[in-house]
Amino acid sequence: MLAPGERLDWLRLSRTETIGPVTFYALLRRFGSAEAALDAVPRLGRHDVVPMSRAAAEREAAALDRRGARLLCWGEPGYPETLAAIEDAPPVLSVLGYGELLAAPTIAVVGARNASANGRRLAQDLAAGLGEAGIVVASGMARGIDAAAHGGALASGTVAVVAGGVDIVYPPENRGLYEALVREGAVVAEMPLGTEPQARHFPRRNRIISGMSLGVVVVEAAAKSGSLITARFALEQGREVFAVPGSPLDPRCRGCNDLLRNGATLTETAADIITQLGPLLHGAQLPPRPPRAQRELPLTVAPADPAPVVVDEETGLGLILEKLSPAPVAVDELVRQCQLSAAAVASLLLELELAGRIERHPGNLVSRR
Amino acid sequence: MLAPGERLDWLRLSRTETIGPVTFYALLRRFGSAEAALDAVPRLGRHDVVPMSRAAAEREAAALDRRGARLLCWGEPGYPETLAAIEDAPPVLSVLGYGELLAAPTIAVVGARNASANGRRLAQDLAAGLGEAGIVVASGMARGIDAAAHGGALASGTVAVVAGGVDIVYPPENRGLYEALVREGAVVAEMPLGTEPQARHFPRRNRIISGMSLGVVVVEAAAKSGSLITARFALEQGREVFAVPGSPLDPRCRGCNDLLRNGATLTETAADIITQLGPLLHGAQLPPRPPRAQRELPLTVAPADPAPVVVDEETGLGLILEKLSPAPVAVDELVRQCQLSAAAVASLLLELELAGRIERHPGNLVSRR
Repeated sequence: MLAPGERLDWLRLSRTETIGPVTFYALLRRFGSAEAALDAVPRLGRHDVVPMSRAAAEREAAALDRRGARLLCWGEPGYPETLAAIEDAPPVLSVLGYGELLAAPTIAVVGARNASANGRRLAQDLAAGLGEAGIVVASGMARGIDAAAHGGALASGTVAVVAGGVDIVYPPENRGLYEALVREGAVVAEMPLGTEPQARHFPRRNRIISGMSLGVVVVEAAAKSGSLITARFALEQGREVFAVPGSPLDPRCRGCNDLLRNGATLTETAADIITQLGPLLHGAQLPPRPPRAQRELPLTVAPADPAPVVVDEETGLGLILEKLSPAPVAVDELVRQCQLSAAAVASLLLELELAGRIERHPGNLVSRR
Repeated sequence: MLAPGERLDWLRLSRTETIGPVTFYALLRRFGSAEAALDAVPRLGRHDVVPMSRAAAEREAAALDRRGARLLCWGEPGYPETLAAIEDAPPVLSVLGYGELLAAPTIAVVGARNASANGRRLAQDLAAGLGEAGIVVASGMARGIDAAAHGGALASGTVAVVAGGVDIVYPPENRGLYEALVREGAVVAEMPLGTEPQARHFPRRNRIISGMSLGVVVVEAAAKSGSLITARFALEQGREVFAVPGSPLDPRCRGCNDLLRNGATLTETAADIITQLGPLLHGAQLPPRPPRAQRELPLTVAPADPAPVVVDEETGLGLILEKLSPAPVAVDELVRQCQLSAAAVASLLLELELAGRIERHPGNLVSRR
C-alpha cells in the first residue's frame, strides 16, 4: 500500500507525457521511487519533459474522490496480479464501484459490436456460467457481445475496462449498463478522468482486458476486428484464447473460426473454459459482497432509451424475425433486444405462432421454425 | 484383372454367409485362390458353411450386366487404392455409372439429413471447390448434406456409396439424383443387387465412404449421429477428418464442434481441405470423360417430385423465410429447395422485399435482413 503522497507521485509520473508504462517502471527501478524520478526527469532527456504538476495531480485525486472513484497503483493490494505481470501494466488505474472484484480470478468475454441475438445470448450464458464457477468476467462495455457479457455476470461479478476516463459513458446508449456496473461490478480506466475515448485508446485498453484475465473468450468477431487484437494481446501475454465457433457463411464468425484454426480452444459453454484452465482456477471464489439490498440493485439494466419504441406491426414482425433463429431464445430477452413493450412482443409472437413461423418451447422460449 | 471365372469365384466366396471381408482375405491367403477356398470352406468349420452356388453367382452377374453395372474386385485396376488399403475392404463391389472416378483422389463430404439451407449450401460449395481442384467427392446419397455434396460435384465427379444394392434408390425421393449419378458420376454398393438397405448396412457402408477417401469432411452433424461414425472410421483408417464449425446453439452443429474439439481440421472452404492434404493431392486430376452431350446429361437434377408443390401464400412465405439466413443464398437454390415454381418464389420474394424482410445482392442472391 502506497502512502497518499507516494500515490500522488505515481500519478504525476504516469501522467507525464512521453512516459509510457515501460519507461515508468524503468525510471522507478533506476531512481528507486516516483518522487526521485520526478526530480530527475526534467534533467534527463534532450527534450523538455515536464511532469504533471503536484496541483494537477491533487485536482485529479480530489475529482476522483468526489465521484467515489479511487486510484490503484501497480503492486498495491487489490491490483490484479495477472495484470501486474505484464510488461506494460498500467502504473495507475482509476476504479469505480466494487474494486475488490479486481483481485479475483478473471476471464475476459469480448466480441463484435454488431452481434447477432444468438451471439449476445451465448456471451450472456458464458458470462453467467463463469460467474457460477466463481470467476469474474471482464469486458469492454461496448455494444453487442461486451454488453451481453457484462449483463450475464452482473449478479456474480463483472469488470468493465473503458478506453476513456472512468467517468465517461461510451457508447452513450450503455448508460444504464454503466450505472449498473458502478453499483454491482466495477469500472476501470487507465486514462485521466474526463478523457473522451479516441481510436488510439482502444488497443491500449484491450491489453488491459487481456492482461487482467487468465484467458480471453471471443464470441462473434469479424476478420481483422478489435476483438482479435485483444486475442493477440492475450497470446503475447501468455494467456489462453477461447473462441466460439460459427457458420462459415456468417462474416461475424470469421474471426472466431480463424482463431480456432490457429489453436484457440473451441468453446460452446463455460465448462469448456473451466476444463481448459483447470488448475489455474483452483479454489476460484468471488469476493464476498454486501447483500443485494444494500447495493441499491436496479431490478433490470435500463436500456439506453428506456421508453419502448413504437413501431407498426410489419416492422415489429421483421424486428422479431431478425432476432430469432432455430435455436430457442427467451421471450424476455427478445423484449429487451427489440426494445418493444412486453405486450407488443407477446402479440407479435402470437401472430407469428399462428402463421407457423415460430415454435414455442418450455421455459418461455421461442425459436424460428 | 481377374478372369471372368475368377471374378465369379470371388463373388461366390464374398457372398457366402459368415464370411466377412477379413475372413475372405484370410481364406485367400491360406488357399491361394477363391476357387480353392470355395472347395475347402465346406469342410473347415464346425458349422455348415454353404458357399453361394455358381448358378446364383451367374444370375447376379447377368442381372448386373442387364442393368449396365459391373463387378470390381479388390486389387483390380480401378478398385480405389485407398479403399484397398483398409483391413476390411469389400472384396467385391458392384459399380454403376462412370466407374473410372473410383481411381481418382477422393474426399468424402457427409452430414446431417435434416440439414439447414446454409448447411446444404456449404456442402455444395465445398464439393464444387473440391471438384475444381481435381478431387472426386464421395458421399452416401442421403437427404440433406449428402445430396447437396453430390449435387455440387455432379459436373466434376462424384461417387455415391449406397447401403443396399446398387439398383435400389434410397431414400426414394432421391431418384432424380440417383439417375444423374448413374449418368454423370458413379454409384457403388457392397450388398447384392436388390438388397433393401437396413439399419445394420449403414455403418458398413460408412467404412467404405471413409475408406475410399483421403479425408472425410463433416458438414452439420448432431451429437452421436451417423456422420460421426464415418468420421470415427476415417480416424481408424488413418484418414484426415475435417469439420465445418457452427453455432453452439444449433444442435445440428454439435457433432462438428465436438470433432473440432478433438482435433479435426476446421473447414470453411475447399481451400482448407486442400491445404491440409497438401502433398497427398499432388497432381490430383479427374479422369477424362466423354463430352457432356454424349452422356445424356439432364439439364437439372430432377427433384423426387418434379411437379412444383402448390401452397398458399402464408405457407410459401414461411417456407422461404425458413430457408433464408443472414448469409446470402442464390434464388435458384431457393427454388430448388422449396420445390416451388420459380414464378411463385419470385412473387413471394418480392413480397418479402417490400416488407423489408429480405435483402437482394448482386448475382441473384438474397438474404434475411
